[in-house]
Amino acid sequence: MTRNQNFLNLWISILYRYRKNYMNKKLEAYGGASGSSLLILSIYKNDGISQEQISDLLKVDKGSIARAIKKLEQEDYVRREEDVTDKRVNKVYLTPKALALVPEIQSAIADWNKQIMTGIPVESQKIFLNCIEQMAKNACNTCL
Amino acid sequence: MTRNQNFLNLWISILYRYRKNYMNKKLEAYGGASGSSLLILSIYKNDGISQEQISDLLKVDKGSIARAIKKLEQEDYVRREEDVTDKRVNKVYLTPKALALVPEIQSAIADWNKQIMTGIPVESQKIFLNCIEQMAKNACNTCL
Repeated sequence: MTRNQNFLNLWISILYRYRKNYMNKKLEAYGGASGSSLLILSIYKNDGISQEQISDLLKVDKGSIARAIKKLEQEDYVRREEDVTDKRVNKVYLTPKALALVPEIQSAIADWNKQIMTGIPVESQKIFLNCIEQMAKNACNTCL
Repeated sequence: MTRNQNFLNLWISILYRYRKNYMNKKLEAYGGASGSSLLILSIYKNDGISQEQISDLLKVDKGSIARAIKKLEQEDYVRREEDVTDKRVNKVYLTPKALALVPEIQSAIADWNKQIMTGIPVESQKIFLNCIEQMAKNACNTCL
């Protein structure tokens, strides 16, 4: 294992934790929504998505998604509707309050991405993004 | 922002969470140590490191490091010694119990890295690792 491979997981950990802190600070006025930016964006891009589909999209277990959605519902960021064809399925929609927050989230993520990409040539960024997409797919398929 | 940049933070989140789960499962027999693999390795590579230096190395706040070290001490994975030149400083060492665990951690991390790098050409891996190192440095310097 090269020196860089040794550090790989530390760098991923730093990028994960610092992005969370950055978003929490940028969106702290929005309460519980500040920690749910990826969740809110995934509903925004898939209006009426089911909780199960969100779980599959974000690769987060169903229990955690259910708790996060419930919290967002209590704070009036999402509403749930029973699927007319299958009453066991809850479809999730953003409320006007959340829709007003979406541009703030998108702007904060764009700012964050721009800052962390500073000094990295565009061609390397493309290779990096293709690699990390493949790595995330591999991660979901890892076995012990 | 390209499609890939939109997904970047989701992929980082997946790699962070799935690696944590993988390590927890691989090392579940070792109790509290299973969630502290990066911390144990950083002490292994820097025998007698201070808690402040660990905080700086892992980019984790001092309070969280203090709590994690205390937990590892209670489970006999580390011991602390006052610095002879500065009594305010605690130097941290691995115990024989932790030293016996280090090869397990290294092997688990090597397995994980190998699995997530599957299908990625070596040349792209090098570019990827250089990029993510730069991005982690940038993340530590981001401002609101």
